[in-house]
Amino acid sequence: MLEKRTPLQINQAVEKVTAHLLAGRTEEVSIFESDGRYLGEDIIATNDVPLFTRSGYDGYALRSIDTVHASSEEPVELRVLEEIGAGMVAAHDIGPFETIRIMTGAKVPNGCDTVIMLEAVKEVEKNGERYITIKREVKKGDHLSYQGEEAKKGDVMLKKGTKINPGVMAVLATFGYAKVRVAVKPRVGIFVTGSELLEVDEPLQDGKIRNSNAHMIFGQVKRVGGEPVYLGKLADELDSCIAAVAEALKEFDLLITTGGVSVGDYDLMPDVYKALNGEVLFNKIAMRPGSVTTVAVLDGKFLFGLSGNPSASYVGFELFVRPVVRNMLFCENLHLKAETARLHVDYKRPNPMTRFVRSKLSFDNGELVVESAGMDKSNVVTSLAHTDVLAVLPGGERGFAIGDKVKVLLLEDDEGSKWPW
Amino acid sequence: MLEKRTPLQINQAVEKVTAHLLAGRTEEVSIFESDGRYLGEDIIATNDVPLFTRSGYDGYALRSIDTVHASSEEPVELRVLEEIGAGMVAAHDIGPFETIRIMTGAKVPNGCDTVIMLEAVKEVEKNGERYITIKREVKKGDHLSYQGEEAKKGDVMLKKGTKINPGVMAVLATFGYAKVRVAVKPRVGIFVTGSELLEVDEPLQDGKIRNSNAHMIFGQVKRVGGEPVYLGKLADELDSCIAAVAEALKEFDLLITTGGVSVGDYDLMPDVYKALNGEVLFNKIAMRPGSVTTVAVLDGKFLFGLSGNPSASYVGFELFVRPVVRNMLFCENLHLKAETARLHVDYKRPNPMTRFVRSKLSFDNGELVVESAGMDKSNVVTSLAHTDVLAVLPGGERGFAIGDKVKVLLLEDDEGSKWPW
Repeated sequence: MLEKRTPLQINQAVEKVTAHLLAGRTEEVSIFESDGRYLGEDIIATNDVPLFTRSGYDGYALRSIDTVHASSEEPVELRVLEEIGAGMVAAHDIGPFETIRIMTGAKVPNGCDTVIMLEAVKEVEKNGERYITIKREVKKGDHLSYQGEEAKKGDVMLKKGTKINPGVMAVLATFGYAKVRVAVKPRVGIFVTGSELLEVDEPLQDGKIRNSNAHMIFGQVKRVGGEPVYLGKLADELDSCIAAVAEALKEFDLLITTGGVSVGDYDLMPDVYKALNGEVLFNKIAMRPGSVTTVAVLDGKFLFGLSGNPSASYVGFELFVRPVVRNMLFCENLHLKAETARLHVDYKRPNPMTRFVRSKLSFDNGELVVESAGMDKSNVVTSLAHTDVLAVLPGGERGFAIGDKVKVLLLEDDEGSKWPW
Repeated sequence: MLEKRTPLQINQAVEKVTAHLLAGRTEEVSIFESDGRYLGEDIIATNDVPLFTRSGYDGYALRSIDTVHASSEEPVELRVLEEIGAGMVAAHDIGPFETIRIMTGAKVPNGCDTVIMLEAVKEVEKNGERYITIKREVKKGDHLSYQGEEAKKGDVMLKKGTKINPGVMAVLATFGYAKVRVAVKPRVGIFVTGSELLEVDEPLQDGKIRNSNAHMIFGQVKRVGGEPVYLGKLADELDSCIAAVAEALKEFDLLITTGGVSVGDYDLMPDVYKALNGEVLFNKIAMRPGSVTTVAVLDGKFLFGLSGNPSASYVGFELFVRPVVRNMLFCENLHLKAETARLHVDYKRPNPMTRFVRSKLSFDNGELVVESAGMDKSNVVTSLAHTDVLAVLPGGERGFAIGDKVKVLLLEDDEGSKWPW
């Protein structure tokens, strides 16, 4: 049936979604499996770093006071007690005019307060004993990394919701997090609808096209940190459609359908939402593409009815599904990162609706610029491959020209932005 | 033994590495497993897209010539032959003053050359037959997506070496790539050396520290698209060290060791390279940190001897290991993406060596700016967690101040740059 739909403003639509956010869950994984996951707890310093005051160079540990009067004319001679490598602990304390040969990273012996670099001393042997001579004053604290100067036991090193990158892995290892508590990847079920759709491995047929949306959304779910499951094509028959969606809702907190949300005659999805007593948050938004995105909630679960049109589906996912997934990953910023960039392409035709244009970000001597990602027709798939930002062109009576500054939403970024942009 | 090492310029060191690049291999994976992988072949359009001329809207397909004289005063009446949804093929051709009701995405029937939107016509019934009335001329080609307008069969859609993102997945699906040929992930073996190192799950001991480098490098290998394997700690004894490295070289094309490459007394690695007849490309570079990075080649395999110092190891990986891995992934640009950004932090102390400073990129009204990622001492691990660029501060007699423009190397980017920066 043909439905009358009243378009909502974009920010109102987003607010309706974020009013129903779902809570995330956590699980423990090995540090070796933690790459790319999101921290499910704050990471606390389990010890001081450095754990002990250590030498920053290969050299000699000594008491600075012993060198106060050292000069070329009157060098100071210190007796070498022993030699310690990284990981070793000195057997002796350092007393007056004594020194210990020390490697980078080794714990400095008791009694010393500074280290002189290997290259700055002369080593000598007398009566079978080792000595060094020093021709200048050595300042207290030279070449030392003090216990706790990087982190104190109990410090919060990283916040829950941080994405685990190589540097985060180094921090986890430093503090002994062999197991890491991370956010469970939100599992997202994906259905497609549309009798015109062929699966990727089916031969072409006249009038039909291959289903590309499911795979695109599959990739989008992975990019944002979720776990996508492709559930296949919904039948073009209401009862089995309802049954399939109801069954999937038992297993998935988030369910995406694409297609079947246009104003066409054969759209079953509104009846599916109705039959399942879903609360439709909105079914039309004042934006292009993606104006016929529907979002419904039902028993603490989300149903996203994205358009069958590739670019509309892509944009709908990024605006409405992304914040729900990121909240379940404990991210502080739920939305696409928004920045300002200069257009390197004209969009002269005004549009009453705010547009999200698939675009490519590049840089011009330190400035962000937006290029076209390819053909801009909403049914075009290939330009999505080159898309890494959405350029936001506010609706109104004027177009946009090369050189104009516009907002861009960064798709490959992990940091995100708070709403509103 | 203490070795005399002559520092090489950074670009010379990189050139020595890229003179020995290894070839990549390919394998087929399911499209569902292809996310984040790198294309192992060009993706060719296996059919036109659209495959057939299709309607861009819900409406009526008709012959524009029949509407030439249509006006409010003299509307044109067209007989509706049938109704077709997306995926259906019309049973009739369209003749004079005939039309077919058509849904978005459906193949347009023979005989028509345009589509008028549903909202622009009036539907009437006469004598049990359906008609529409049209009050204006409809231009030829309105609301049509022509066969092949997006892609022609045989077109190269995506180049080998492209990273598979959600849009690429849509393209693969569109052209029926149920299986995708991708680059085999280069397997990278990782050893650590250093008697001071504890594994992440070992209890702390006086004078020792936990091994964080292996985990950091593990993450770096993953980020660049390789498959890391942690091989454990090398013994501090030459023969078993040589045996372990020789054994690992049977399995891995790329082997990384960290630690044991300083000028300290206990460095076994030079003797390991020697014993295995490795050709040492360089063992000292005029840069900070990472000056004591060693790269050796041996029977078409790479041995990277990275520093035991976390920041030096991190930088050494990104400059020297990254291009080798990316070449095996067929990437066009082997090196870190280099852009220009404005410093939001001072580095006033000049340094004769070029420095790579762990930094955080942000944007200020469309301009790239560099912030500090935290403590800049080279043994500090925690700032690596916040690092997404390396700021390049060229060596020389002057420091750098807030507002200066410097080169930044983007760590989270997939596009890369050609060398030299």
